[in-house]
Amino acid sequence: MAQSTVGQITIPERKLKDFCNSVWIKLGVPKKDAETTTDVLVLADLRGVDSHGVARLPRYYTDLKNGWTKPTDQSRIVKETKATAMIDGGQSLGQVVGRRGMELAIRKAKETAVGIVSARNSHHYGIAGYYSLMALEHDLIGVSMTNAAPLVVPTFGRTAILGTNPVSLTAPASKEQPFVLDMATSVVPRGKLEVYDRLKKTMPLGWAVDTTGKGTSDPHTVLDALSRRLGGGILPLGGEGEEHSGHKGYGLALMVDVLCGVLSGSATGLGVDVDKAKPNVGHFFMAIDPAAFRPLDEFKRDMDRLARELKDSPKAQGQNRIYVHGEKSFARMEKYRREGIPLTAPVVESMKKVGGEIGGPIKHAYFWTENVVFRPALSFWRGLGRYRNFMIDVGRRRSREGRAGWFLG
Amino acid sequence: MAQSTVGQITIPERKLKDFCNSVWIKLGVPKKDAETTTDVLVLADLRGVDSHGVARLPRYYTDLKNGWTKPTDQSRIVKETKATAMIDGGQSLGQVVGRRGMELAIRKAKETAVGIVSARNSHHYGIAGYYSLMALEHDLIGVSMTNAAPLVVPTFGRTAILGTNPVSLTAPASKEQPFVLDMATSVVPRGKLEVYDRLKKTMPLGWAVDTTGKGTSDPHTVLDALSRRLGGGILPLGGEGEEHSGHKGYGLALMVDVLCGVLSGSATGLGVDVDKAKPNVGHFFMAIDPAAFRPLDEFKRDMDRLARELKDSPKAQGQNRIYVHGEKSFARMEKYRREGIPLTAPVVESMKKVGGEIGGPIKHAYFWTENVVFRPALSFWRGLGRYRNFMIDVGRRRSREGRAGWFLG
Repeated sequence: MAQSTVGQITIPERKLKDFCNSVWIKLGVPKKDAETTTDVLVLADLRGVDSHGVARLPRYYTDLKNGWTKPTDQSRIVKETKATAMIDGGQSLGQVVGRRGMELAIRKAKETAVGIVSARNSHHYGIAGYYSLMALEHDLIGVSMTNAAPLVVPTFGRTAILGTNPVSLTAPASKEQPFVLDMATSVVPRGKLEVYDRLKKTMPLGWAVDTTGKGTSDPHTVLDALSRRLGGGILPLGGEGEEHSGHKGYGLALMVDVLCGVLSGSATGLGVDVDKAKPNVGHFFMAIDPAAFRPLDEFKRDMDRLARELKDSPKAQGQNRIYVHGEKSFARMEKYRREGIPLTAPVVESMKKVGGEIGGPIKHAYFWTENVVFRPALSFWRGLGRYRNFMIDVGRRRSREGRAGWFLG
Repeated sequence: MAQSTVGQITIPERKLKDFCNSVWIKLGVPKKDAETTTDVLVLADLRGVDSHGVARLPRYYTDLKNGWTKPTDQSRIVKETKATAMIDGGQSLGQVVGRRGMELAIRKAKETAVGIVSARNSHHYGIAGYYSLMALEHDLIGVSMTNAAPLVVPTFGRTAILGTNPVSLTAPASKEQPFVLDMATSVVPRGKLEVYDRLKKTMPLGWAVDTTGKGTSDPHTVLDALSRRLGGGILPLGGEGEEHSGHKGYGLALMVDVLCGVLSGSATGLGVDVDKAKPNVGHFFMAIDPAAFRPLDEFKRDMDRLARELKDSPKAQGQNRIYVHGEKSFARMEKYRREGIPLTAPVVESMKKVGGEIGGPIKHAYFWTENVVFRPALSFWRGLGRYRNFMIDVGRRRSREGRAGWFLG
């Protein structure tokens, strides 16, 4: 989805990661776990899932600061077989629980051909795709799912009971990019409604319903009612009613809650991630070794063939390309790693606020304006002399317009 | 979906099964395998998936008659671990391969907590839900998927490359009905287009595209182009383009082909079920033991709670019920088991034709008219005397109108 670049700030991946790491470390998270948490967030931005990227840093920060998330890993394996494990997350960072869960599923798949790990008592774990992607490094098929706070209305209902409950599945290929499905089971994410709301645009019918359960094209009333828990919400994949099979998207969302919530004994439905002090989110991780079924090189060769068959097939009028899932994100990732990660001004502002609150260890102040970030050296400030206050004032004003500002890291 | 009862014939489950069994047995299928094949077909009718019920009997009959399907089970396990198995179906009946695959997955799940079985070189196996339902008898979570003949157009494409590739997942509950998700990953099945075509109705935009890849509401041109392989086809769940996330449905269909086709080494994409003599369909079966994660009664209790939460939640204006997946089918199954299974006249006609072709062992001739079937005793025919030929003639004419006829079984 193309986004306007007005008010975007491009920040190098390394700088962004250093800043995030410094926030977690300051709050007592051990270095390795801080890096995992940062990796998950920044990967979302790199792959273009902005809603799950560093935009969420303030939320994780607040949860840690209030003690709702434990800074050190409290997770423990409570039940285990050769092929399965049950993890109690101990209210640790979702990313840390997630990484541990998927690592365990991978280890089991290497030994037993399949590994399934269920986790309860965890937090929002970021993008589902981060964990399924881990399996690719081992030439395994990876699966990752999580339940989430209620935003999605069941077919024929008018209250959000289920989360946007994502499903991610990855499979390695040879010459082609690996297959990376990473999708919410809702028709759109909440973030998409927010974009339409900010732009004061009406949204297509079939995305959301109002408090009476009727389809609406007004994003503002939906978001407002959701935030005040008055009813309404986002529709499952397939939209309203059964005409376009909205009941299938609803079924997929429910399947995810069965595998993540009921299987693990975490919260389900209305109970997920509602009490900030005890969100009790549940995850499901699986790794499958294709080599247990057929030679790995044959598997990868057929992945290539299927991807090529789809991509080489005739295009619809007005279209010039058919994508295989993951392709767009890999291209974006490459570009952003080279050119820096574009963030919106409000996101940078919110990170700056966090940076200001935690005080140190902030090493540098960055000045940004559209698509440019620079780090003034101390000598720059000294040399600035009497213009310094003027510069700072300009920075403040442009920052209010979302066109320039400071960024601590 | 409510269906008109005009021209429907209601046949008792047992009678229908006896007839199907007699067809398979006549073609050399051993009794147990014949019963499995029949069970899968009739379960589809009982659960309301008419397109996959006995309506498909003539197709399976033709495949067996032509030697494209082997009447005796040629399937063999070609690779196996504690948690996985790879089956070569040996071109046996898809239902027989499917049953064996799921039984194996279940056995492995009981021993190893998880069982995954992949099958290649199989045939159309009927409804995916038949196999996942098998897991419920053992208090396991069941998963069943299959690839299928190309009918679905990828996002931005204009040629059907993927099948309607269904996903089914079941999970046991306690007082509530078990959760039974059984869905094609396309927005609608081909059968739905056929219904609209027969009624000469336009269909909603978002179900299918024409040969240029543009959305169309004319079912006839889509079905015609599909049958002549000119392009176009059914859209994935989410519809055309990306506005309602058609790329997600496309991703799910592709995921199914990865797990069924690529993992097993069967045909994939355009190659699935196209050469009638070697359809090379691939399946994926999985069983998971919830008790490996938490006590079974707690799992079932939470399944109940989640189902109740959804069903008790406020209804959309004009709606009085929210369903959990499987509920509608269980209700239908109970009704049909009590009252008989309604079949359309053309379906009964096609079975009658098969019955006529195979000759014996046909034990009885049934006369049917709308919603009534009766089996005239031999004495009835004797007593009929000179009216017999008149009756037969009336039967023939009403049969041509699809309102009455004979049915051999």
